[in-house]
Amino acid sequence: MNLKQIAAEHAAAFVEDGMKVGLGTGSTAYYAICRIGERVREGLNIQAVATSEASDKLAREWGIPIIPFDQIGRLDLTIDGADEVDPDFNLIKGGGGALLREKIVAANSDKLIIVADGSKAVQKLGKFPLPVEVVPFASEWTFQALENMGCQPEWRMDGQKQYLTDNGNLIADCHLGAIADASELNVQLNMLPGVVDNGLFVKMADVVIIAKEDGSIDELHRP
Amino acid sequence: MNLKQIAAEHAAAFVEDGMKVGLGTGSTAYYAICRIGERVREGLNIQAVATSEASDKLAREWGIPIIPFDQIGRLDLTIDGADEVDPDFNLIKGGGGALLREKIVAANSDKLIIVADGSKAVQKLGKFPLPVEVVPFASEWTFQALENMGCQPEWRMDGQKQYLTDNGNLIADCHLGAIADASELNVQLNMLPGVVDNGLFVKMADVVIIAKEDGSIDELHRP
Repeated sequence: MNLKQIAAEHAAAFVEDGMKVGLGTGSTAYYAICRIGERVREGLNIQAVATSEASDKLAREWGIPIIPFDQIGRLDLTIDGADEVDPDFNLIKGGGGALLREKIVAANSDKLIIVADGSKAVQKLGKFPLPVEVVPFASEWTFQALENMGCQPEWRMDGQKQYLTDNGNLIADCHLGAIADASELNVQLNMLPGVVDNGLFVKMADVVIIAKEDGSIDELHRP
Repeated sequence: MNLKQIAAEHAAAFVEDGMKVGLGTGSTAYYAICRIGERVREGLNIQAVATSEASDKLAREWGIPIIPFDQIGRLDLTIDGADEVDPDFNLIKGGGGALLREKIVAANSDKLIIVADGSKAVQKLGKFPLPVEVVPFASEWTFQALENMGCQPEWRMDGQKQYLTDNGNLIADCHLGAIADASELNVQLNMLPGVVDNGLFVKMADVVIIAKEDGSIDELHRP
């Protein structure tokens, strides 16, 4: 098993019979969905939603019951990956472009379990470019506002065209280097007219599971 | 002339030769655009953007040069209406559903001039339902979060279907009655995952022009 798989299987053990579960997106979430799928085949009874088409499809292949978002109600837990995790349980997510859906699902889960390999654990967030979701209307103004804030934004591209999220918005990847205050930046970005949301998940993670190079696992709980 | 027309013509006098001007939406903005159009026909040289298709069309009919948003740069001033104005120059806007576009245009204007008749001037915002723009994804969760905040939301309808904004989002009209702290509520709403923006314009208006019942005008400047 690789590191991501080790951490993902550890996270999957948090799922209990009768739970409503959010399934994340990305390579680590992939392994978690597979392990939950195995447990469903062994008789585990859960209801689930997925943060992407890909995870939705994978879960259905494993026979995990997928419920429409407007019918499932609040979730007991969500298992997802992250692009960076800091010691205060703050995250950067959205390298895959699904930050808004992932944040909505996380916000509606009693517990958010983040799974990552050791390379994602950082002292300070910001080396990974922070994705900011921007409405297409007058997007050059919003881009300029991000530049004026010192965010060093760069439009995410999809070949020759601008990348579009599932919600029909653009992504400005912000090359911040180091984020001094994630909580403050999170508010500043979201208060900017034209910004829908951003990839900072401030104090949303409840459990962080890190698989380290030596194969051991750190399971950290937010105080 | 009716009250809206009196106030709108007063506002139109703020437009000077060479300016880049934002044109708002609604019945009061309509009169302002007509007056600016008359001045353009008399030789006034400006460039403009409009916050709606309707205002765009009206401006073009008057011969006002409309420039694409990504080419005009920062605006000198914007003239727009409001649904409510309080003594601290805070506004509720978006009864017409264009709150996001109006807020983006206002944020990128050096000066925002708000035109209203006296019925819009209130001591406390909130009697007019506050529009909140919500992404369609998992919108029932966001609606529930607004309910939990005590916002008394109600989906805006378009006949039997949910109303859709120009940006493809939903509007939850929040029946707040009275808003204790507009600045705080503005942040709380925009930090809610799933909320794109809301109709509170906090300290964005620079000049408020109120046409009163007796035909006189109050021109108030934000300190």
